[in-house]
Amino acid sequence: MATTPLPPAVIANAVARALAEDVGPGDLSLAAVPADQPVAAEMVARAEGVLCGRAFADEVFAQLGGAELGWRATEGEPLAPDQILATLEGPAAVLLTGERTALNFLQTLSGTATATTALVEAVRGTGVRIVDTRKTLPGLRAAQKYAVRVGGGHNHRHGLFDGVLLKENHLAWAGGLEAAVAAAREGVPHTARIQVEVEDLDQYRAALATGVDAVLLDNFSLADLSRAIDERPAGVFLEASGNIGPTNVREVAATGVDAISSGALTRDLASLDLSLRYR
Amino acid sequence: MATTPLPPAVIANAVARALAEDVGPGDLSLAAVPADQPVAAEMVARAEGVLCGRAFADEVFAQLGGAELGWRATEGEPLAPDQILATLEGPAAVLLTGERTALNFLQTLSGTATATTALVEAVRGTGVRIVDTRKTLPGLRAAQKYAVRVGGGHNHRHGLFDGVLLKENHLAWAGGLEAAVAAAREGVPHTARIQVEVEDLDQYRAALATGVDAVLLDNFSLADLSRAIDERPAGVFLEASGNIGPTNVREVAATGVDAISSGALTRDLASLDLSLRYR
Amino acid sequence: MATTPLPPAVIANAVARALAEDVGPGDLSLAAVPADQPVAAEMVARAEGVLCGRAFADEVFAQLGGAELGWRATEGEPLAPDQILATLEGPAAVLLTGERTALNFLQTLSGTATATTALVEAVRGTGVRIVDTRKTLPGLRAAQKYAVRVGGGHNHRHGLFDGVLLKENHLAWAGGLEAAVAAAREGVPHTARIQVEVEDLDQYRAALATGVDAVLLDNFSLADLSRAIDERPAGVFLEASGNIGPTNVREVAATGVDAISSGALTRDLASLDLSLRYR
Amino acid sequence: MATTPLPPAVIANAVARALAEDVGPGDLSLAAVPADQPVAAEMVARAEGVLCGRAFADEVFAQLGGAELGWRATEGEPLAPDQILATLEGPAAVLLTGERTALNFLQTLSGTATATTALVEAVRGTGVRIVDTRKTLPGLRAAQKYAVRVGGGHNHRHGLFDGVLLKENHLAWAGGLEAAVAAAREGVPHTARIQVEVEDLDQYRAALATGVDAVLLDNFSLADLSRAIDERPAGVFLEASGNIGPTNVREVAATGVDAISSGALTRDLASLDLSLRYR
Amino acid sequence: MATTPLPPAVIANAVARALAEDVGPGDLSLAAVPADQPVAAEMVARAEGVLCGRAFADEVFAQLGGAELGWRATEGEPLAPDQILATLEGPAAVLLTGERTALNFLQTLSGTATATTALVEAVRGTGVRIVDTRKTLPGLRAAQKYAVRVGGGHNHRHGLFDGVLLKENHLAWAGGLEAAVAAAREGVPHTARIQVEVEDLDQYRAALATGVDAVLLDNFSLADLSRAIDERPAGVFLEASGNIGPTNVREVAATGVDAISSGALTRDLASLDLSLRYR
Amino acid sequence: MATTPLPPAVIANAVARALAEDVGPGDLSLAAVPADQPVAAEMVARAEGVLCGRAFADEVFAQLGGAELGWRATEGEPLAPDQILATLEGPAAVLLTGERTALNFLQTLSGTATATTALVEAVRGTGVRIVDTRKTLPGLRAAQKYAVRVGGGHNHRHGLFDGVLLKENHLAWAGGLEAAVAAAREGVPHTARIQVEVEDLDQYRAALATGVDAVLLDNFSLADLSRAIDERPAGVFLEASGNIGPTNVREVAATGVDAISSGALTRDLASLDLSLRYR
Repeated sequence: MATTPLPPAVIANAVARALAEDVGPGDLSLAAVPADQPVAAEMVARAEGVLCGRAFADEVFAQLGGAELGWRATEGEPLAPDQILATLEGPAAVLLTGERTALNFLQTLSGTATATTALVEAVRGTGVRIVDTRKTLPGLRAAQKYAVRVGGGHNHRHGLFDGVLLKENHLAWAGGLEAAVAAAREGVPHTARIQVEVEDLDQYRAALATGVDAVLLDNFSLADLSRAIDERPAGVFLEASGNIGPTNVREVAATGVDAISSGALTRDLASLDLSLRYR
Repeated sequence: MATTPLPPAVIANAVARALAEDVGPGDLSLAAVPADQPVAAEMVARAEGVLCGRAFADEVFAQLGGAELGWRATEGEPLAPDQILATLEGPAAVLLTGERTALNFLQTLSGTATATTALVEAVRGTGVRIVDTRKTLPGLRAAQKYAVRVGGGHNHRHGLFDGVLLKENHLAWAGGLEAAVAAAREGVPHTARIQVEVEDLDQYRAALATGVDAVLLDNFSLADLSRAIDERPAGVFLEASGNIGPTNVREVAATGVDAISSGALTRDLASLDLSLRYR
Repeated sequence: MATTPLPPAVIANAVARALAEDVGPGDLSLAAVPADQPVAAEMVARAEGVLCGRAFADEVFAQLGGAELGWRATEGEPLAPDQILATLEGPAAVLLTGERTALNFLQTLSGTATATTALVEAVRGTGVRIVDTRKTLPGLRAAQKYAVRVGGGHNHRHGLFDGVLLKENHLAWAGGLEAAVAAAREGVPHTARIQVEVEDLDQYRAALATGVDAVLLDNFSLADLSRAIDERPAGVFLEASGNIGPTNVREVAATGVDAISSGALTRDLASLDLSLRYR
Repeated sequence: MATTPLPPAVIANAVARALAEDVGPGDLSLAAVPADQPVAAEMVARAEGVLCGRAFADEVFAQLGGAELGWRATEGEPLAPDQILATLEGPAAVLLTGERTALNFLQTLSGTATATTALVEAVRGTGVRIVDTRKTLPGLRAAQKYAVRVGGGHNHRHGLFDGVLLKENHLAWAGGLEAAVAAAREGVPHTARIQVEVEDLDQYRAALATGVDAVLLDNFSLADLSRAIDERPAGVFLEASGNIGPTNVREVAATGVDAISSGALTRDLASLDLSLRYR
Repeated sequence: MATTPLPPAVIANAVARALAEDVGPGDLSLAAVPADQPVAAEMVARAEGVLCGRAFADEVFAQLGGAELGWRATEGEPLAPDQILATLEGPAAVLLTGERTALNFLQTLSGTATATTALVEAVRGTGVRIVDTRKTLPGLRAAQKYAVRVGGGHNHRHGLFDGVLLKENHLAWAGGLEAAVAAAREGVPHTARIQVEVEDLDQYRAALATGVDAVLLDNFSLADLSRAIDERPAGVFLEASGNIGPTNVREVAATGVDAISSGALTRDLASLDLSLRYR
Repeated sequence: MATTPLPPAVIANAVARALAEDVGPGDLSLAAVPADQPVAAEMVARAEGVLCGRAFADEVFAQLGGAELGWRATEGEPLAPDQILATLEGPAAVLLTGERTALNFLQTLSGTATATTALVEAVRGTGVRIVDTRKTLPGLRAAQKYAVRVGGGHNHRHGLFDGVLLKENHLAWAGGLEAAVAAAREGVPHTARIQVEVEDLDQYRAALATGVDAVLLDNFSLADLSRAIDERPAGVFLEASGNIGPTNVREVAATGVDAISSGALTRDLASLDLSLRYR
């Protein structure tokens, strides 16, 4: 099955906002060019990476009045430097005004997809899923989480409304682990799993005793992760987190956890270098 | 003079959007905690960096019903690891629900301010200004450009509406450099300077001949930059760009350009590591 | 733990919309009264029911400039006819203009809470949870699902984004039950349970074989429900649905299902009769 | 003349809001089905009722990317159980994601139209108009009032801005009935009629003496309604209200009032049972 | 009774839009001044006129963070040149950034109020009401109609939704005058009067024959207006329109019409000259 | 080069707002006409003027469902009385409902374009540019500034965010002229020119001494303007302002200033008289 797509309204709203902040009351440089002159361009990758964000670029030019985008690379395709991603044809004003906004979406989302793919490749064959977090760029969460999926990763909960992850402070204020899990189980939809974050094996065992559905093992050593795996009951989902990156992700995966989450995927960004080349 | 502040509406709208994507129809984990219980926490830096985004954090908690933030670090202050940035007091529900969104703003903007300061420090004493570009995270341009200012950098134009930068394609479609500059000069407000991007000394000289106000010297060698400086008439602003980062920025600055622009400042991101520690 | 509250923005946006449609460019009848004259009123229940929506009423008067609401009944409290719910004091214009909108929220949400409580009371002691569906009044889902919680019910997933319920057509187009469950398990966050809707025992058994987390038994006879209970593996959540209302809900609950869902709770509405009485 | 239609923007905004609350950042179950697979379905009535809301359903699928709706029933048509209302063809993702939202609009508005028609039929031949009130579902007023029209009913004022109905408290604070009517007459556009609500014949006679355009006779006995009719001057519009429903509406109509208003029409709701059947 | 006020949301939305277009991502000139320095200013009239728009100015400064406005003139007060309207105290940034937007609202609305008062004064004692039209500045209708009220004028319908004015083309397409009036009477709420626009006495008489509530006599000679008055039945409201301004309005009023409408009131604008003087 | 166009979103948002305020929940008069009947009309100028706003009219009818506009006059064309501007064909409902809103945009913007052209013509041949100010109708700035361009004028800065104009109070609070200019130069993007407003020759000379890019000579006598011109260094842009209108603009232009700004252009309005004539 392909990556779950974003709803059209999510894309349209993100693009409208981005165009508003770049174009505002109008593109001054259009004073220098004949707005309706038909022009053509190619979008080119200038580095290796994974393409993500085609629908955002399509929407940018559509909102400006329309241009023809002929995509030559598919969403999620690994790109080579100098590879042509798309050809564009349209009025000069549409291409000039939309260029930067379209590239900003593509470079940002392709950057996240590329970083995700790096981790996914590093654990290939282990069956472990690479998952994202809520450490995202404000206003871009749906887009970034889509980029994680395009890059081969999996999403953790989208936000506070679609999943439960009980942390230290929830437990404390709820009157302890058992009370917190019971209250969450009672109070949230049966469609949501209850996950608890733990920081050592004792907490882990206590969490298992409450019958939680999933546990986040934060900053566990490899040895402790292995022990946690050994002790886990059937059906409990185990996620590891804490400074896991390209260099150590495979070791962690080898312990047998179900998922490894990485805040860096969506909190940091190395954009993919792309450019538009007019013909 | 202090950094030019962001208008309240820009901050409020950005925060409302970010809260909507994280909280949606409600924070499920509040099922486990007494919403009104008064709690306290400290926000802590976990790495060195420059603090940016206080007003966004204030707004997050205000929009959720209110909490007391006692800031112990000023906007733009260089932070040390483990430094306490702020104390928070308020109802458990407000702190728990707002924590991630507040941190996401702070870590993102502090990351950009920190990267800016690194470049600014590298050219300290040269009088050169470090400037940003339009390569930004979609939807976050005003916030990122504010972070550049907080980090000691300067802003280039905000978007297409408040400055003119004529590039290769504008020139071609306008019927050449001279025609493009003349048309821009005629068509845009007298409050905007006309800047032209050039890629070699010949183009540079041709640009100067049109009487432009500013020139962007893209990917010039150090030697060519120096030559450009030597040849510039009084009052023309020279900006250098093209793969200039911490390692070579001082060399470029030494040529005597007025500004050095860096797309990486706002296109890439190394977030500042921050956390909230409940007491 | 109390009912999970709605985020302030959800309430504020719903109220702003409702006021806009009632007040538009202005309340014509204010031509007849001195806008600033201080007046007082009491909100009274005219029938039995469960109070829900206090925060919406508070917000209505706040958005109009402010009035003092002294609540004498708590959210979720069972009301008797003629019971005074609140006293109001404020400028005539604020009370007159806001009255209908405030009552519309309260009567609608209290109606849903009341209907929910009727079902909840009918199964009291059985441990079965009464849950809502996505059959809601367009634009009011978060408010209605909150009313279900206030009435003692539980929420099913909020929408398509926070839970998975595979129905006949998903199964068909996915290439069968097994493929559908596998694809859903692979493609959705680990924080979401996978639920399948089945219409007979054969489908139920096939669903169990895929290892789903929950099953919706639609239009099962009491006998078949009992058989389903007998056969269920540990940890699988069973929900019954299909024309279950006050008269037969207890029989269904007695079969031992975990939850009973009712579309009528939020699809139909018998508003609670409330009025504002000026003093 | 056909029913006055709703403006496109009213429909588009209502649909955008409803889709946002159901689909949010994305339909998780699309992980299980091939999004682009062409599928077909039929929308079927499962009970008798009056069809209302076609344009909302059209808009739902349009906003999701487009599907072919072949309507086989007209707006306002009385439906029989099992009657096919429409055929749908389009990509699986569009139909699956939009189905519930489209049905929610249709079942809600058809429910209101159906209830209206019941009252309208009960007074057929009397020349009395059945009118709605401002007791509506927050955020859905324009849509509900449209459904009343489709059901053969008439609208009362839409809100506080397009008509004047002076009630007890307006009269009191204005300094009496005469002063209130005079102030309203003076202060509101000449395009609006002035209506006064009265609770007994004395008040009615006093209202007539002020030259009002219309009177709302609230909770009058049949005898008093008849007396009011007898005494009314030419051109004064008389509306009866107060617990008038299907069982007693014809008696009330027989008194000769011009209109009978019913809060229950839009305050309560018995949705029409509809379903989508995939082929 | 005082002028009917605008709802807070109407004012807040208009101000937010106006500030956004003036301030955008930030006031550049704040780079030159200490943002928090407390400053004081006086708002001064530089010409005669009628003050209108105080609440808009209040809202401007509130949305920017707050300033103290001490009003020394009341809404609707006739102003003399050099009269101080208000004193302002607040942070330099708030006053500097808000000044122009506040003045733009005040000068625009006071201009409309002033023009209205001129016509109102010209007919003083005749009992004729001066009314506005739908010829307004796009986006400012509610504000302009409020200014008409403040200036002593009356509002015609706000828009197409709160009144009926049948014109030549409605009549033609409806199948004639009689059919049009009957259809409108049947189709619109009983709270709205039906008005017909006529261009000569024959049309006027035909309109009266249909029992309309009001007639707009467009471009009638004074003689024809007088004849129309002579022939009108009790209770029919007569409005004159067509190039009626300060020089001829009293003559028209003398014919005995109920109202005189003027498109120029809201279609054209002579702003009131105001300024802010810092102390 | 043609006039710089407005972005589609600016037009679409302005039109959506204007339609909402005129049409609200629906056009009542559609009760009297067959909504779908095809009709035709002509838009006609009733006075001389300059056409402006075609794209707004196009958008009005598009948002209402679509009509065919056949433009017979180009944007910026000088119109003669009775000239046909466009033919319209479409459903009766679309034309009737959209007519007023389309005309309101056209009459407003054409009015501004016409006033601009009058000033532009008055200085033809002098090379002086006529520029607008920030004294605009709230919410319509981008549209009005576009109309100024269509009329042959030039724009001053759009708002506070895209240009710097230091006035008396900035200078005072910044610690004097020199400090203010230095701070502004340091704090704003290099793409913006720094302009200072002065009120006499002494201030002018002081401003020149700081190296500002442009000076606004406010209320200078013709003699002083000439002296200012004589003394100005190369490259400094001089703008004159202060009660300059059609009668004296040429005299002022003759002094040799670069630009003359007129608040009246966008602060006052004499709408162009247009009408729709149905066929």
